[in-house]
Amino acid sequence: MSNLFADLPTTLVSEQFDVLLSAGSVRIERIVSTGQSSPPGFWYDQSEAEWVVVLQGAATLRFESEDRQVELKRGEHVLIPAHVRHRVEWTTPDEPTVWLAVFYVEQG
Amino acid sequence: MSNLFADLPTTLVSEQFDVLLSAGSVRIERIVSTGQSSPPGFWYDQSEAEWVVVLQGAATLRFESEDRQVELKRGEHVLIPAHVRHRVEWTTPDEPTVWLAVFYVEQG
Repeated sequence: MSNLFADLPTTLVSEQFDVLLSAGSVRIERIVSTGQSSPPGFWYDQSEAEWVVVLQGAATLRFESEDRQVELKRGEHVLIPAHVRHRVEWTTPDEPTVWLAVFYVEQG
Repeated sequence: MSNLFADLPTTLVSEQFDVLLSAGSVRIERIVSTGQSSPPGFWYDQSEAEWVVVLQGAATLRFESEDRQVELKRGEHVLIPAHVRHRVEWTTPDEPTVWLAVFYVEQG
């Protein structure tokens, strides 16, 4: 047992990823950002689908195909299908941003 | 897009379950309790594993086999393997308790 909101770093060189569960086709991670964004020109292109919610802080995701931005405040969630290229455009520098991400293998 | 902390009922006859994602072997639900507990003598006996976190409020789970209680405060999570019989012993009457549950099929 641990707490999603415990042991939150306040400054990080890069985002911190903690695997909370890894079981077959499902993985749950806590991600903590302290103002980081993805490097310029970098896009995530994942083989798994990702359902992700911001539980503290705030963030902006950008999706390449539609050049669409999605702002995520506390409690807001989004589904990112596999291979939908996206990046973290912004996270608030005011406090740690805590994400909870559920990765899973899409079934054809 | 919706918000986990939006549209929280303050009084409910029974717990409210909202499916946020259902995709093959994974299902994500928001559960809201407003002081409810499981009926006397009732035990959940689920064919899926459940990873669950309390995001607001507080709750107590009881596990039948060890007659063990687990108190969950904001941010605390627990993994309930398939067919591990458990019940909700208590949720706080002071505010809505918001759970996020990830159900998945265990792989043998």
